[in-house]
Amino acid sequence: MLANNHSVVFYDLELLKKPGLAWSPNTCKTRFALNLKKIPYETKWVNFDDIKTVIPAITKSDKRPLVPVIVHDDEPVVDSWHIAQYLEEKFPNNPSLFHGNVATHRFFQNYSEKHIIPAVFRLVLLDIHQSTGDQALQDWFRQDRESWMRGKTLEQFAGDASDNIAKLKSGIAIVSAHLKEFPFVTGEQPGWADVALLSHLAFLAALKPEIFKDHVLCDENMRAYWNRTEYIRSGVASPNL
Amino acid sequence: MLANNHSVVFYDLELLKKPGLAWSPNTCKTRFALNLKKIPYETKWVNFDDIKTVIPAITKSDKRPLVPVIVHDDEPVVDSWHIAQYLEEKFPNNPSLFHGNVATHRFFQNYSEKHIIPAVFRLVLLDIHQSTGDQALQDWFRQDRESWMRGKTLEQFAGDASDNIAKLKSGIAIVSAHLKEFPFVTGEQPGWADVALLSHLAFLAALKPEIFKDHVLCDENMRAYWNRTEYIRSGVASPNL
Repeated sequence: MLANNHSVVFYDLELLKKPGLAWSPNTCKTRFALNLKKIPYETKWVNFDDIKTVIPAITKSDKRPLVPVIVHDDEPVVDSWHIAQYLEEKFPNNPSLFHGNVATHRFFQNYSEKHIIPAVFRLVLLDIHQSTGDQALQDWFRQDRESWMRGKTLEQFAGDASDNIAKLKSGIAIVSAHLKEFPFVTGEQPGWADVALLSHLAFLAALKPEIFKDHVLCDENMRAYWNRTEYIRSGVASPNL
Repeated sequence: MLANNHSVVFYDLELLKKPGLAWSPNTCKTRFALNLKKIPYETKWVNFDDIKTVIPAITKSDKRPLVPVIVHDDEPVVDSWHIAQYLEEKFPNNPSLFHGNVATHRFFQNYSEKHIIPAVFRLVLLDIHQSTGDQALQDWFRQDRESWMRGKTLEQFAGDASDNIAKLKSGIAIVSAHLKEFPFVTGEQPGWADVALLSHLAFLAALKPEIFKDHVLCDENMRAYWNRTEYIRSGVASPNL
């Protein structure tokens, strides 16, 4: 389906050396939310270089350019959390993200951001760096990110893989127990809590598939959940994908 | 109000040396759920000694006697989680515990049980022991609990208070951030997630009030929340309390 003024255009972040791979946990949240709500959309890929010009032209903002951004009815909406609330409001007849319980979904996202994604981020950081693009783009990424890392190099920040894997497994333990009891984090129907978790797992699955397989999918509850949610991740149920 | 066949009788666990103190996190979950739902009830206190005879006579079960138990319409209902679901079903016109999202509330409970209550339990364990009753009852409590503690004494299991306080504060950090954003864990209206959290905090507040004040109430989000939820803990809004 071609985009028109009423359809959603979704800006996702591309690694130039891995074209078409949905890897960023922030943009995956928006992608999976659109899929869960069965909202048609057109993906426009921006890489770490052209994000600096493409996104400010859309948002008309001089803040640091970030994705996800969606454009709907000619208006840009920025930030995965704001986009989720926008989609819930604008598409009330589509499947719900929050099921009327925004706060408990948000708590789950906060849990996952504290107890799951930091370990994933350290596990994949060097792969992101190496996949950004040419040497100039890799150098920019290193300089940009190391300025946030309190004097640590990317390698020092990434740390020891086995430590990160242990932390990841510890964070997943109560999620696995939950998914033994309920088909989705949200319960009988998936929702935003699932979108958040899946986006964090997809981050690892995209960039470290062996670690994902050996330390997440090895858990039978997580594997069954991953299979059960394939339609949310791939959007196969979405009419225009 | 006197109990009749249609009212709820609620069995709570009493420390003989602290009569009338609501301290057990398991029974507090039921007490606070009844208060939140504004369901009239009559409390019957059982101590560690008479629980062994009183509860089996009600439940007609030879399983280890546990509280909470409620009796409603002449039928016993056992276990705080089952009681919550029973109350939600039987009192659908009263304020809701789950707001249609059982699973996300359950996840929050599981979070609190993993990241908050273990530290609280270690902080209060010796106080429970000393408050159970006479020497014979204290000896029974020690023997009973130490048989679960893999060869550790109560004192060894309780461990170092400062370690426990650090773990408690770590577990509370994302809850405090959440309560800066939302008035209740559940959002605009309180629910089961709040009942679980409040029961875990009440456990500490009842038995170690100074630690509770210095390390939980010192956080302004937690203090505002504690004040905001006084009616859920005390049941002042409940018609027969």
